[in-house]
Amino acid sequence: MRELSEQAIRDIAYGSTVLGTGGGGDPYLGTLAAIESARRQGPVRLVDADELADDAVVAFPFIVGAPLPFLEKLTAGPELGRVLEGFERFLGRKVDAVMSAEVGGANSTAPMSLAALAGIPVVDGDLIGRAFPELQLCSLTLHGIAASPIVMGDEHGNAVVVETISNQWGERLARTTSICFGAICVAIAYPIDGKAVKALTLRGTIGWAEEIGIALRRAHEEKRDGLAAVVEATGGEVLFNGKIIDVDRRTEQGWVLGEAVLAGADDDAGHELVVHFQNENLIAVRDGEIVASVPDLITVLSTETGAAITTEQLRYGSRVAVLGMACHPIWRTAEGLALAGPSHWHYDHDYTPLAGRFRPAEIHPWTAPGGSSTVAA
Amino acid sequence: MRELSEQAIRDIAYGSTVLGTGGGGDPYLGTLAAIESARRQGPVRLVDADELADDAVVAFPFIVGAPLPFLEKLTAGPELGRVLEGFERFLGRKVDAVMSAEVGGANSTAPMSLAALAGIPVVDGDLIGRAFPELQLCSLTLHGIAASPIVMGDEHGNAVVVETISNQWGERLARTTSICFGAICVAIAYPIDGKAVKALTLRGTIGWAEEIGIALRRAHEEKRDGLAAVVEATGGEVLFNGKIIDVDRRTEQGWVLGEAVLAGADDDAGHELVVHFQNENLIAVRDGEIVASVPDLITVLSTETGAAITTEQLRYGSRVAVLGMACHPIWRTAEGLALAGPSHWHYDHDYTPLAGRFRPAEIHPWTAPGGSSTVAA
Repeated sequence: MRELSEQAIRDIAYGSTVLGTGGGGDPYLGTLAAIESARRQGPVRLVDADELADDAVVAFPFIVGAPLPFLEKLTAGPELGRVLEGFERFLGRKVDAVMSAEVGGANSTAPMSLAALAGIPVVDGDLIGRAFPELQLCSLTLHGIAASPIVMGDEHGNAVVVETISNQWGERLARTTSICFGAICVAIAYPIDGKAVKALTLRGTIGWAEEIGIALRRAHEEKRDGLAAVVEATGGEVLFNGKIIDVDRRTEQGWVLGEAVLAGADDDAGHELVVHFQNENLIAVRDGEIVASVPDLITVLSTETGAAITTEQLRYGSRVAVLGMACHPIWRTAEGLALAGPSHWHYDHDYTPLAGRFRPAEIHPWTAPGGSSTVAA
Repeated sequence: MRELSEQAIRDIAYGSTVLGTGGGGDPYLGTLAAIESARRQGPVRLVDADELADDAVVAFPFIVGAPLPFLEKLTAGPELGRVLEGFERFLGRKVDAVMSAEVGGANSTAPMSLAALAGIPVVDGDLIGRAFPELQLCSLTLHGIAASPIVMGDEHGNAVVVETISNQWGERLARTTSICFGAICVAIAYPIDGKAVKALTLRGTIGWAEEIGIALRRAHEEKRDGLAAVVEATGGEVLFNGKIIDVDRRTEQGWVLGEAVLAGADDDAGHELVVHFQNENLIAVRDGEIVASVPDLITVLSTETGAAITTEQLRYGSRVAVLGMACHPIWRTAEGLALAGPSHWHYDHDYTPLAGRFRPAEIHPWTAPGGSSTVAA
């Protein structure tokens, strides 16, 4: 267990944005909320899964909906507190710790706001090892664990509890509810015990996000190359260097869809890369050929600073590098690819894994879904 | 307490359709479901509010959404059973009796299906004394009683519990959920105790619906005038006799909006009446002048049979009589008119009450909302 300093919260937020593959919204807002909660309510304590009792109750707070109205509508602290109360009432017992549902933007830090408020720790890890925009796309679904009850609340004090026959239904009802709540709301779901946290979650990803954030910050402090520092900390590879020459971004049924076109620079001069996104970056196509694909991580970084650029921040003229990172191996199992592979996003290509390793999976044990073998990189 | 025969269930359904002012859908389907439940599970028992213990828990099952997909999607029995289970789990205790949220079409008989299934009685009465298409438009809202928890379920086994800061928010979230559930679902809401049933509901309306249904049936059996029998049983007045010469019906955001134009016959020859509806019939306009208005009841009856014609069944060429009935006096209070008077439906006319009396209100005591005096007829 350790207490997270304000600096640590910022480092985690910036590192999470690199792992968030363009999604999850501006990390700045979630960071502000978490730091504010820590100042008012007391420190955020980060624990390892091993520190949990096997029968501890752990739950996953997150923000559902479009990230844009976040600042105007939600401070995330009080809303999450009310939702936790409803969740505990529904479960009939207290929640002992919270954990991030995903690494990426505001959802990495939302559990910290709640942890400070409720005086409970945050467990180091998440359920995806990146960001995905639908709540059923996570390791617990692969292991047959129900998201229910999903408890949602708005800034007025309204609450909705969803109990479903599948996590896909949970996603549909949660999405619909968030739209009724004005496009965004807070939620808590996936109650599991400490034993399940140890076996079925992706452990250590928050600590890894912090390492990436620290690498970026130190590079700036020491006036070194931020981009190189981030690439090294992630263990990923730069797929393309170039300049954004076109961004087509449209909103359809609450999704941010589009593509960014990059003209190559340096070694990539004369070539073109197109990044297609649906909230998160999903595929990178170089001169017509797919060079990286979901579930692997594709993140656009500023060449100048090394900071991750979310899909909403993609701008014509920016000098960028496109980073590819191997996803957590759970997404390379047959079950993982069936749930969140290219076909889920309506692509018809076969998935070709990027080289490299998802670092926390090297350190922390993880459980493959029933009977699955992983696809080798 | 009495057991309802299959004939009694049919009589209640047909009488309810007269009180349903064009809304609530085809009574035939709800009747089938209730009779089927009674055959399988045992008789439907109807009790007077006075037979309830003061601390009995009573709740209101109903169908949310468009009536048209009803037959295809829902049998209403098993779905309501699951929703009741969820409702009781949320309340932490058993429900002792159910009651209709409104009189009109399928929602008069939905509680009967559930009552047979759960082996509990139906209380004679409802919350509106007619049909209204939004769940906050009822006597309990006027008395400051929360609709929450609203428990909803679909035919697959998914469930949603809504707890809101106002019944208006409850309506918004329930409507949104029903759309996600495929435009229709079952719900239970408004848990109240026996004491509140006695004081704050509109008692005796199911029995009154049965009287109207019996009057209609006997007239047919005895080859008398069905229309005259219905008009007499309701205590209402025929506002217009004529033929439907135009029906404009459109669906907007789940509502059935439109108007039917009638050319006068007999004493009304040479005149025109337009009935405007939003799921239910809301105003009747004779030669440009409003002659009846929500919250009073306006029902289109077949001249030939005396049976009520729902807004979906309005057809060019039908010979019809338009019946006007005084609403329950609770809707003529300042609070009642503020909640469900013309302005709620985006009309800007003042409400002029129809003559006549709402019969159950003559027999059963009712409580006016805090400090209100009624508008005299």
